[in-house]
Order: sequence, then structure tokens, then C-alpha cells
Amino acid sequence: MRALVLKDNLTLRQDYPSPGVLTLPPGEALIRVRQAGICNTDLELLRGYANFQGVPGHEFVGQVQACPSAPSWIGRRVVGEINVPCGACSLCRAGLATHCRARTALGIRGRDGAFADLLTLPVANLHPVPDTVSDEQAVFTEPLAAALEISDQIHIRPSERVVVLGDGKLGQLVAQVLALTGCLLTVIGHHQEKLDLLAARGIDTLLTDRSSNIPEIEADTVIEATGTPAGFKTAQHILRPRGKLVLKSTYHGLAHVDLSGIAVDEVQIIGSRCGPFAPALRLLDQNLVDISPLIHARYPLDEGVKAMERASVKGTLKVLIEM
Amino acid sequence: MRALVLKDNLTLRQDYPSPGVLTLPPGEALIRVRQAGICNTDLELLRGYANFQGVPGHEFVGQVQACPSAPSWIGRRVVGEINVPCGACSLCRAGLATHCRARTALGIRGRDGAFADLLTLPVANLHPVPDTVSDEQAVFTEPLAAALEISDQIHIRPSERVVVLGDGKLGQLVAQVLALTGCLLTVIGHHQEKLDLLAARGIDTLLTDRSSNIPEIEADTVIEATGTPAGFKTAQHILRPRGKLVLKSTYHGLAHVDLSGIAVDEVQIIGSRCGPFAPALRLLDQNLVDISPLIHARYPLDEGVKAMERASVKGTLKVLIEM
Repeated sequence: MRALVLKDNLTLRQDYPSPGVLTLPPGEALIRVRQAGICNTDLELLRGYANFQGVPGHEFVGQVQACPSAPSWIGRRVVGEINVPCGACSLCRAGLATHCRARTALGIRGRDGAFADLLTLPVANLHPVPDTVSDEQAVFTEPLAAALEISDQIHIRPSERVVVLGDGKLGQLVAQVLALTGCLLTVIGHHQEKLDLLAARGIDTLLTDRSSNIPEIEADTVIEATGTPAGFKTAQHILRPRGKLVLKSTYHGLAHVDLSGIAVDEVQIIGSRCGPFAPALRLLDQNLVDISPLIHARYPLDEGVKAMERASVKGTLKVLIEM
Repeated sequence: MRALVLKDNLTLRQDYPSPGVLTLPPGEALIRVRQAGICNTDLELLRGYANFQGVPGHEFVGQVQACPSAPSWIGRRVVGEINVPCGACSLCRAGLATHCRARTALGIRGRDGAFADLLTLPVANLHPVPDTVSDEQAVFTEPLAAALEISDQIHIRPSERVVVLGDGKLGQLVAQVLALTGCLLTVIGHHQEKLDLLAARGIDTLLTDRSSNIPEIEADTVIEATGTPAGFKTAQHILRPRGKLVLKSTYHGLAHVDLSGIAVDEVQIIGSRCGPFAPALRLLDQNLVDISPLIHARYPLDEGVKAMERASVKGTLKVLIEM
């Protein structure tokens, strides 16, 4: 099959071994990929993050082609959760399967991903896509779920003052989701054209540059989605005492943090990663989240290397790969 | 009156101006101090922390000597909460008075403290001490309340695996309080003789030195009470995914923190400071917390400078000053 393969560098291969129906692990389905999205994590994999080798890609929509253990899935259009836990360790048994230390993760860790004609995932990871949700909407299910993880972890009240730091792909989805609560929301970012996408939805925005003074806001909740260590300091500065700081950014290396300030102000820091797929599909189905302005480019899989190059251009939002 | 006064250095003065009944601010009481405790914060004040000048001391038990606005308090033995909020700002109005940015704090910020014959505090800050609670117990109300703040902020379940990092004054009180939940508790510290105080109560302890490997524990909740930046890294290491890390330590300067690890493991960091006095008095009254092994020395106020020197000797637990 065709696959974009990362091994030293990234190349398109026409002859990458297909996962076979006969060799499918028990409980897994063989899925023909229809579309896939490029995430910042994919770009980091290219820089050595997670030491991943194989087929990257974890945002996808596809169609089940084979599923020996549950044939009723065959032919269904699906999206899939990316973590595949071992099911047996103490974390799995404690209901923390998505944090299983022996887990594989689609296109990130020990498991080939979605930038290929075919992939496999356990049936337990799959969610059927309603007919009313397009392929290009469905491919946003995974990042939208990551945005919804915030409301799954903490209670965002409609009367709260909430600030989202970062106007990138994740910040955009987070802002759209949080605006649905009715909260007093401001998105702070460095890119006027990205902030304009949110302003067009009636969301309050604030353009800053790296040399700007940190704005004087006493936010009840701050979502740090800048993807940079500098974002944390800004987040801490605008958070009120006993406020909540949701940490979405991941990057390589350590940050300098005022831990004493956390204790004295009694703030809470909440780490936040992957999220729930079912509500993400519901919001897409109800058109409560609009992904169309976030798509900056589409490439066929045969031009996958070019797609990745485009995605790594600063200021680019979502780049899709079509099979 | 006599007072231990910090101004450039620390001196005992016999002629420090007494707060007068006639000059008491509305709603405040004049209190004759009976005993006071030396806290790490007092030692940090000597090193320049908070730029404080005046009479330090915020752990005390005393007797109300005058109280024009509420004479029924006269003669009562009391302890007092240390933060005096402005009552008018947005934080005060939002129910966050202990975090009021214009607040004074007894012996720490804009208000003379307890290492003196007399102090003043608003009646709203006072709690009567039951006759069954001794002076030397009552003087621990403030640090015990800080330990209880943890259970006021998060739910510690009896079936949880909890680790307290630090065997100092605060770690000791935190451990005694958390042991009351029935949780599976381990205290990790560097001082065998301090750990022995906890072991004598049946609390599980683990001696490590700074060169030891970090123990392999998957704790549901970790309380960081080491008072050092290094404690945070250890705390993060032994915390399970989605666990809670309560941050009690305050110190000068920044720490190097793996923020991405917080996001990926979806852990929560909870800053924690001053706490509720009423439950602290109840635990003391019921003898559920034993403060006697924590008292390492007692000095009369006239030897207050010596008392502070003793408190700053490494390994010393509580030093009391008697008036």
C-alpha cells in the first residue's frame, strides 16, 4: 500500500506492507483511510519527538474494510481513538487505560498511523460517523475531542472569565468549544488573521506580540495552548488567586516556573491531553463547531511529503491529506 | 511593651510602642500574647522575604484585653487568622478575601505580629480556644490549619495511596492529619529522627538522602512539603497519571519544571496555603493530632533573638516563645 514513512527522514512509499486481514490482532479492525489531518505532534515526530519510526498520522476518518471479530462494523465510516492500552496493568485496571504506560498510540508510539491507505485499530477505539458529518468535519474529531477534554476535567461556568492563550489549531477549537458555555471569553494570540477567524464568530480577541506587556486580566480560568514555555508565565500572571490553569501545550524541554506563586495564590494547574470522541462528533453533527476556516490546504497522499512541508510553514492551520 | 523587632537586623526592644485601646481600628481587638511559635516564614523574613519590617510572628495564642466594638470578647483566650483583607476589592467581593491583594498579614505584611506583649487583629479573625486545649496546643492552630487546607481543597479518599514529601514541621502536621483519613500513607524524608516521630504513630515512612534513587511509587496524591525546588521533581515522578500534586512549599526563586509531563500525564497541581482554624481547634481538642513531640525548645520573649537562632538550626522542629 501507499504510506508516508518516517525513518531518518520522511518518504512516500508505494510498496509499504499492508496490514493483512489474516494477521489482524484479535478485536482489531482493518480501516481504509479516507482523509487524515496533520497535527503539530506529527511535525514534532519529524524532529525526533517520541523517537517514532513508521507511519505517522493520528487524525483520520476512514471506512472499515475488515473486522473478523465484529463483522457488523464492515463498511461503516469511522473515526478512532488513538491510544491502545494493554488492558492488564494497574493503570488499566484502575480505569486509566488512556494513560497505560505500555500503550501504543496510533502514528505516535509502536503503531503505524493514518498517513497511509490502510490502518488497524481495536474495535473498542472506533466511533461511527453520522451521515450528516462530512469527511472533512470528521477528521477534526480527534483534536476537537482534545478541546472537549477541558470541560470533561473541570467545570467551566457560564459566568466565568476565561482566557485562551494561543490562536493556533488547538486554541481555535478550544475557543469555539468554550464559547458554547456562554462564558466571558477572550482569546489572546500573536496572529491577527487567526484571531479574525474567532472575531467573526463574535469571540473577543486580543492581539499581543512577544514584547507586549502582559494584559491585566483577572481570569477565573486560563487555557494555555500556545505550545511554548513562555505561555505558562503569561497564564500564571493573568490567573486570579484560586483560579484554574489548564495546560494543553506540550513541547520538548523544561520551563522556569514560579512554583511558590502557585502555592501562595492557591491556583490549580490541570494537565490536559486527549479527550472524548462522542461529544466531539455531536458538536460537529450539530454544526456548533465550524472547522472549515481552519483548513488551509489539502494534498493527495501522493504529495504527502509536500503536505508536511506546508504544515510546518509558520502560521499554517490545518493541512489535510486525502487518500 | 516588649517586642522582637526586625529592622535591618532582629533586636529585642523593651520600649516598642504598644497598640493603644483608643487607637484601635474599628472592629479590632487588643490581644495580650501568651505564646507564639516560630515558623519557617519568620526565618525567611530575616533573609529579606516579603521585605517585612516590624514585629514578626503569626502563630500565637493570647487573651483579649480590649475590644471596644464587641466587649463580650474581653478575657477570652483566642487564636487568630493572619490575613486581614480590605473587604472592598473585587477579590474580597468574590469571596476570596484571604487572597485580597491589599491585605495585611500578621507579622508578615503591613501589620505587627505576635513576638511581642500585645498585638491587634479584627474580631472577625478570632477563634475562641476551648478550655480543654492548652496554650501549647493552641499555638499550633495556624500551621495545623495550613495542613487541613489540603482536605478543604481536595477529597482525600481512604483507599488512596498518598505520599507526603518532607518530614519538617509542616510535613509532620500534614502527615498526622492525612493519616486520620485511613489512606495508605507514606512520608518520605531525609531525617531518621523526624521520621521516627511519625513511625511511632504507626505511619509508614521512607528515609532517602539527596543521592537516593527516587522511589518507584504510583501515588494517587502527593503532598510536596519539602520547602525546596527539588521536591517538585520527586513529586512529579511518583505521582500516577491523573493524580493530584498538592504544592505546599514556598521559597525564593524559580524551579525547572517538566510542564509537558503535566499535560501528557494529565496530573493536577494544587497550590495550597493558609487553612481553616475551626477544624484545627477541633482536632486539637479531640487529641487527634499530637503536637508535643514537635516542640524542640521554649524561650521567654526576653530571649527571643536566641529563640530565632535556635529555630534556624537545621533539623529543629517547633520553637516556642513564651511571654
